[in-house]
Amino acid sequence: MKKTLLFTALMASSTLSAVFAQETVDQAMVQKIREEGLNHSQVMKTAFYLTDVSGPRLSGSPELRHAQEWAMGQLKTQGFSNVALEPWGKFGRGWQVQKNYAAITVPYYHAIIAIPKAWTPSTAGPIKGDVVLIKADTITDLDQYKGKLAGKIVITDTKNTLTRSTTPDLKRYTDEELAKMAEEQPATERRGNRGNSPQMAAFMRLRALRQALSEFFITEKVGLVLSQGRGTDGTVFTTNGASYATDAKPVTPELETSGEDYLRIVRLLRGGINVQMEADVQTKFYDNDLQGYDVVAEIPGTDRKLKDQVVIIGAHFDSWHAATGATDNAAGSAVMMEAMRILKTVGFKPKRTIRLVLWTSEEQGLFGSRGYVANHFGDPKTMQLKPEQAKVSAYYNLDNGTGKIRGVYMQGNKGVEPIFKAWLEPFKDLGATTLTISNTGGTDHLSFDAVGIPGFQFIQDPMDYGTRTHHSNQDTYDRLVEDDLKQSATIVASFVYHTSQRPEMLPRKELPKPTAAN
Amino acid sequence: MKKTLLFTALMASSTLSAVFAQETVDQAMVQKIREEGLNHSQVMKTAFYLTDVSGPRLSGSPELRHAQEWAMGQLKTQGFSNVALEPWGKFGRGWQVQKNYAAITVPYYHAIIAIPKAWTPSTAGPIKGDVVLIKADTITDLDQYKGKLAGKIVITDTKNTLTRSTTPDLKRYTDEELAKMAEEQPATERRGNRGNSPQMAAFMRLRALRQALSEFFITEKVGLVLSQGRGTDGTVFTTNGASYATDAKPVTPELETSGEDYLRIVRLLRGGINVQMEADVQTKFYDNDLQGYDVVAEIPGTDRKLKDQVVIIGAHFDSWHAATGATDNAAGSAVMMEAMRILKTVGFKPKRTIRLVLWTSEEQGLFGSRGYVANHFGDPKTMQLKPEQAKVSAYYNLDNGTGKIRGVYMQGNKGVEPIFKAWLEPFKDLGATTLTISNTGGTDHLSFDAVGIPGFQFIQDPMDYGTRTHHSNQDTYDRLVEDDLKQSATIVASFVYHTSQRPEMLPRKELPKPTAAN
Repeated sequence: MKKTLLFTALMASSTLSAVFAQETVDQAMVQKIREEGLNHSQVMKTAFYLTDVSGPRLSGSPELRHAQEWAMGQLKTQGFSNVALEPWGKFGRGWQVQKNYAAITVPYYHAIIAIPKAWTPSTAGPIKGDVVLIKADTITDLDQYKGKLAGKIVITDTKNTLTRSTTPDLKRYTDEELAKMAEEQPATERRGNRGNSPQMAAFMRLRALRQALSEFFITEKVGLVLSQGRGTDGTVFTTNGASYATDAKPVTPELETSGEDYLRIVRLLRGGINVQMEADVQTKFYDNDLQGYDVVAEIPGTDRKLKDQVVIIGAHFDSWHAATGATDNAAGSAVMMEAMRILKTVGFKPKRTIRLVLWTSEEQGLFGSRGYVANHFGDPKTMQLKPEQAKVSAYYNLDNGTGKIRGVYMQGNKGVEPIFKAWLEPFKDLGATTLTISNTGGTDHLSFDAVGIPGFQFIQDPMDYGTRTHHSNQDTYDRLVEDDLKQSATIVASFVYHTSQRPEMLPRKELPKPTAAN
Repeated sequence: MKKTLLFTALMASSTLSAVFAQETVDQAMVQKIREEGLNHSQVMKTAFYLTDVSGPRLSGSPELRHAQEWAMGQLKTQGFSNVALEPWGKFGRGWQVQKNYAAITVPYYHAIIAIPKAWTPSTAGPIKGDVVLIKADTITDLDQYKGKLAGKIVITDTKNTLTRSTTPDLKRYTDEELAKMAEEQPATERRGNRGNSPQMAAFMRLRALRQALSEFFITEKVGLVLSQGRGTDGTVFTTNGASYATDAKPVTPELETSGEDYLRIVRLLRGGINVQMEADVQTKFYDNDLQGYDVVAEIPGTDRKLKDQVVIIGAHFDSWHAATGATDNAAGSAVMMEAMRILKTVGFKPKRTIRLVLWTSEEQGLFGSRGYVANHFGDPKTMQLKPEQAKVSAYYNLDNGTGKIRGVYMQGNKGVEPIFKAWLEPFKDLGATTLTISNTGGTDHLSFDAVGIPGFQFIQDPMDYGTRTHHSNQDTYDRLVEDDLKQSATIVASFVYHTSQRPEMLPRKELPKPTAAN
């Protein structure tokens, strides 16, 4: 590997104006990319269409389809090839909120902040009724409520109080934090009998209780369930939702309620004060197309020997439903579309093919990328690989909010270190300097990593992703930091450029073991 | 004055176990007060009834009256004397929200977070319609909208973006900040021709434009106005409301809308995207009793010579309507009720009379305390004083949120410094140490100060008063910090005790000049 790199460096043509750690960097192209990405950006316009104009992009929803169609239209207009909506497999039912209203009416009127839990059904039209406080530590505790809950609004007692944050919502990584990440060692695999731990036993008991509650509420014909959404100050984080499966068990209409409104009702009922509510929650299911789709677009490779090889970039395009999924993940999607636009605009004719894929159903379990990987590259369970697997140099992902790129998670792949170090060098002034051997989880590069394709997520400043936006009702366009998105698109474009032009594909780690064998 | 204090110190009986700066502190009583206030507190129970149970306590509303009646019941049960609802003068109409629902329906469904502006009327039942973006920098710009707005929902264009905070929401004063306050010099009176400044001219232009807009919307029969509420993340701060006067000019129904929802609609309309909404806002006016009332309760004085003299404590009992006014000012009201309860419970028979007054209509202009002062003590305009003015030793107020007491604003009264210094001494361990000569404004002690009665507001930790709760939809019970309220009640009780027992009344400043002469 080293020899090849040295050879490349010696052969560097005049357009390759810098050589760093035996890896070439095309400074002239970096300048063009920076000029287009930083001074002629379209990224906020793209983000506006994905968020404000399209709305929430829940998997299977009409809003997601609208956004996909808009994106395909853009990509076609911009002259990309092979723009398509590619099915990745069966997802399930679409779902959409069509009315969301709930208020306390007794002891006084107060409209609450609450979000219908994804894939829960409608209330039986506008409903009105007493709110009943359920105290159930065990399943047998439910007996006392038998026959008393029909049409009622139900809330579960809790010891929760709202914890107020004493740290700022917005955060960027400090130099010290980045230095610490750079020094991390590869994670050793953790194996343990967590299944037998007291924590796991408590978790299993809680899960069984929740399941029993859910079934009890259906049997008892409860009108509406209030559950407490994480968050404070009007911010409500939603959870994973009910089941989108066509054969899902029935569930009760449910509102994930702001902490302030939830706890007020609990305190009143616990204090013996009668609480009545009115609510009208209307949701709609879509069964017409159960398939899931990714949006694909390409800049075809031009090198006779290399054009069958591919550099893939992607981000998940779907979001949760309480806001417009601006940081999760219109940000990543807009940045990746912008990186493609930048490369097209600077007139780049890549050696390897460059492919953009905008995933869906990431929020339900990375389904869009897993399905795509299964269809094209192989099965991580068996490690039966397809020929295309050998042709992908790298997959780059962006999915950690609006924060600018501070470096790359190398995902345990030590071989890429000198390469990425060289490629980051021109972006020191933009704050992107750090390489960490660490893995990072929870998003679509894992689907590639699982079948032995180098897959990377960039390190991004956290901003208010964890504190305010990630899956919340506050994940709106307002959270997007224009300068950060421009910086990210510029760096991604440069990484893609260099990956596509590099004589060799990126080095790979040892192939993972089949997961089915574990 | 100094001589008297020295004499008092020399005459100190055995129950007066500490002498500090020639001012007596009854350590035994302080211990009793601390024990009751810190270890047997009822302050959170009181706060629960004022907030969760009573709801918003807008001036003139049924919810305010409910809370007043609950408080009078409590005070009577606890054995206080002369418990009464005392009229302070004419206020105006009561008002209440009875329904609050609004949602975007096109380009997709999204229920918005918005609060009916106080004293605005109902929509004409449930309404639906286009949202129209108004761009008007001058009054003549409105001409283009003539005949086009009937029944529409109207929003005004803005250059605002949401500014995200990079500092924590919660804040306590640091030692350095307190030291700086302690070193402040008395404020010199600022006089200037601000009326002619460019800022003032711009302000007057904006005010005229707003007035013209308001009249134009009535003429054009607009269905609903959206205005932007300050705040982020689902927190909405409400403004001063429309007029509660019985002869108020008609206004259009108006929703103070969360920044996120407001700006989303503005961006869509500015981008040429049609936005439609549905809304149902129902409010009710109450004209049956236009009078305003304060709640009064006493522990009568027992000293033959001093019982006609009074120590008054108070807090405003009214709140804004978007939440339950927990920090503004159920906190202060509950603390003052608790201070009274502590003094009663320790079996204290004061020399001077101790009086609690819970003000109303503070939020509209300190009306409850101003009216009370005018009825009892004198008129600040003319400085015509009544005999009772000479009988009030001090007025203590609490109205800066849930934060614990860190000291006292001496309100320019240098004479109280050695006295308050001694009285704070036993509460060093609870963080109350600072005396500042500064004035602080915006609350009811000003009404006393204005007629020459020593009136004081305590220094309190800011907590999230400015960032989240003050006049917002997030001013709920959850924000109340139990330990802080206990500390405050304990310190207030001790201050009241010492004020009532002190041989002399508190020293006074020079009498203010009549304001009418200015």
